Amino acid sequence: MTLHAPYDPQNIFAKILRGEIPKVTVWEDDAVLVFMDVFPQSEGHVLIISKTSTARTLLEIEPEVLATLIAATQRTAKAVVKALSPDGFSIMQFNGEAGGQTVFHLHFHVIPRWTGRDMKGHAQGAMADIDELKATAAKIAAALT
Amino acid sequence: MTLHAPYDPQNIFAKILRGEIPKVTVWEDDAVLVFMDVFPQSEGHVLIISKTSTARTLLEIEPEVLATLIAATQRTAKAVVKALSPDGFSIMQFNGEAGGQTVFHLHFHVIPRWTGRDMKGHAQGAMADIDELKATAAKIAAALT
Repeated sequence: MTLHAPYDPQNIFAKILRGEIPKVTVWEDDAVLVFMDVFPQSEGHVLIISKTSTARTLLEIEPEVLATLIAATQRTAKAVVKALSPDGFSIMQFNGEAGGQTVFHLHFHVIPRWTGRDMKGHAQGAMADIDELKATAAKIAAALT
Repeated sequence: MTLHAPYDPQNIFAKILRGEIPKVTVWEDDAVLVFMDVFPQSEGHVLIISKTSTARTLLEIEPEVLATLIAATQRTAKAVVKALSPDGFSIMQFNGEAGGQTVFHLHFHVIPRWTGRDMKGHAQGAMADIDELKATAAKIAAALT
């Protein structure tokens, strides 16, 4: 998929937002949905998406939606750190297939990192155990401020 | 370096902001400095930092500064795409050494990507040719809107 293309309403995050595909929610409000990546690159890998925008990439996202998303990303990262005590964490946001993007509804990744543990590839490897994801999501949600 | 530590005023970005170390500026205003990474992971690798905050990580950054930084990151990414026509681009923001951070003054990376070209490792490989960086910075600056 190129950087410049129309929004596909059948992308997996659009389906998640419409409730057509299950998700493991960490938290949400009217503007954003924060949920567990089912192909996590590490324990506690969380995604932040807009409920209101159909921007595919950073080139298209409305500035006020972007501000809301990065604030939600910060809030989520703080809770992830409090809940899981990683040694560090990476924020990633991919644009275009060449840029690492696999789902064309703009999203931020929060990926906790631990010293000596390699991060898995993006959207690679096995699907996570849903009960484990739910337990991690509950831990992160309990750490929200 | 851990996630939680005092700000070190001798970090390399603090020195750049004080003018003690040269930089290749793309654009700047009172709030942000946007400059070329001298160890680029790809052609057109740009960094965005705050001039006013001494936050080390996303855990510490003031929400209003964060909003300003992500808006500057978006503005920069649009110019990078216009100037260099990459197939995609990645936004990265690393926190803690385990999270990939090498300079402890919060920064966003804009990394253009081309299909079939691998991205180099973070802060690895040879220092870029400064004249080439200046030429790329000028191209990106000319594409700013």
